[in-house]
Amino acid sequence: MTVADVAAAAQLACLLEASAPKPGNVSPGRHFDDLRYEDFLAAAAAIGEPMTAAGVRPLGMTIRLATEATRRWAGSNVNLGIVLLLAPLVRAALQSGVADARSVRAVLEETTVDDAREVYAAIRLAAPGGLGRAESQDVASEPDQALVDVMRLAADRDGIAREYATGFDTTFTIGAPAVGRARRDGLEWNDAVVEAYLTLLAAAPDTHIARRGGVQLADEVTQRAQAVMAAGGVRSAAGRVAIDEFDRALRDPKHTANPGTTADLTAAAIFVELLRT
Amino acid sequence: MTVADVAAAAQLACLLEASAPKPGNVSPGRHFDDLRYEDFLAAAAAIGEPMTAAGVRPLGMTIRLATEATRRWAGSNVNLGIVLLLAPLVRAALQSGVADARSVRAVLEETTVDDAREVYAAIRLAAPGGLGRAESQDVASEPDQALVDVMRLAADRDGIAREYATGFDTTFTIGAPAVGRARRDGLEWNDAVVEAYLTLLAAAPDTHIARRGGVQLADEVTQRAQAVMAAGGVRSAAGRVAIDEFDRALRDPKHTANPGTTADLTAAAIFVELLRT
Repeated sequence: MTVADVAAAAQLACLLEASAPKPGNVSPGRHFDDLRYEDFLAAAAAIGEPMTAAGVRPLGMTIRLATEATRRWAGSNVNLGIVLLLAPLVRAALQSGVADARSVRAVLEETTVDDAREVYAAIRLAAPGGLGRAESQDVASEPDQALVDVMRLAADRDGIAREYATGFDTTFTIGAPAVGRARRDGLEWNDAVVEAYLTLLAAAPDTHIARRGGVQLADEVTQRAQAVMAAGGVRSAAGRVAIDEFDRALRDPKHTANPGTTADLTAAAIFVELLRT
Repeated sequence: MTVADVAAAAQLACLLEASAPKPGNVSPGRHFDDLRYEDFLAAAAAIGEPMTAAGVRPLGMTIRLATEATRRWAGSNVNLGIVLLLAPLVRAALQSGVADARSVRAVLEETTVDDAREVYAAIRLAAPGGLGRAESQDVASEPDQALVDVMRLAADRDGIAREYATGFDTTFTIGAPAVGRARRDGLEWNDAVVEAYLTLLAAAPDTHIARRGGVQLADEVTQRAQAVMAAGGVRSAAGRVAIDEFDRALRDPKHTANPGTTADLTAAAIFVELLRT
């Protein structure tokens, strides 16, 4: 696995995630008013160089540079969550030759206050409302703890921070296995990605929805994902009907019920599986 | 325009071309039996590193390495034509800061027999039936002329070779202006790409169709593209109906009527326009 291959896998993970028709998210032909599928293509193209150099730059700098490049090409915050998840996985793969629980933990434990400062700058640039407001650390101020530690403070309300706090537990124990299982069972990429996404959404409420629409809405969406999976998901005709209905139910003009964090977690899972195979 | 930006533009050109619903070609949800949209995503991800280094490697080597990387990620010949077109444009942009007729001509005129050898190796690897058989130069043997000269020998039967022979005349005078006009008129990327594609197809018979289905079929397809554009193309309801009918007419199990070279020329046009803006 060369540096070029790791970067290509990171970009392809973004592209496969964006291209699959995940209920409640953007995909080809299913745009939001203020966000189109093409923005995700531009974002994936933009992060090539930052991901290529992720092994030789501090983690926080990689994240900030990827966010700046995305803004230049896509014009908006498209992939902040994905970049936050991919950057440590890519760095782990480049440093250890493998992206697994052990190598990612090593990357996370070596993070510094400088990494946290760079990530805060990236979040402010992307301006997605931060990782939620906390009393002790707020991205409007400057952090005084290492990146992994400020992420731990946000872990209970943000699914991406939780991955940092747990050594990417959800990615390694739920997301990547779901992608791998679907692919080994012969599902095309589109279906495999949707199945992994529904599996992740059924496993835990989406924190992006919780922040925008409240905890109760996030719980309801997860219960509905569980019902869709119980109906067979992409593997049955009834499940496919349920997926279409789920998608319509999640679409509202303000994207309140957009499972955005689950989509980010899906991209991380695809990356891990692409490297494994 | 940094090296990273030029490479990102090359990848994004591939992605925007593949994602637009061009009649007779693969796009999201419109797969061929043996070629899926996801293969084009993988191919676009694969060429990041070769395009990044296109300014410091000989042109032929860039083309061969991009073809090898594509084969590793996409498993088949997906983007040989696009790589042949993008590589000199990318090299021109990296060497001169701009991809225009003058800078591309400089790149082409400095090509060597070694470049030709590398390109022959790339064509053999991708195995698309070569650039058509010629008496004097055949990719099964080894070339004894510079790359630009062997391309001149194939220019009458191959639209990509013709770009090498003419200093990318079609790209600069038809393709890129069509993309730019469509975007300035406010068309979304999907529509802009389809309009540029139809404009190119209406301007000259597709040589990929001519090789596979004969010159007469290629002429008929171009006449039909002219009729679709006369009906307004993507800009009118009648034109959109005509585009859908055109797409159905071009789809057959063997892809005999697949305007593949026109799709490649469209990607080159998008790249030039992305760099210009």
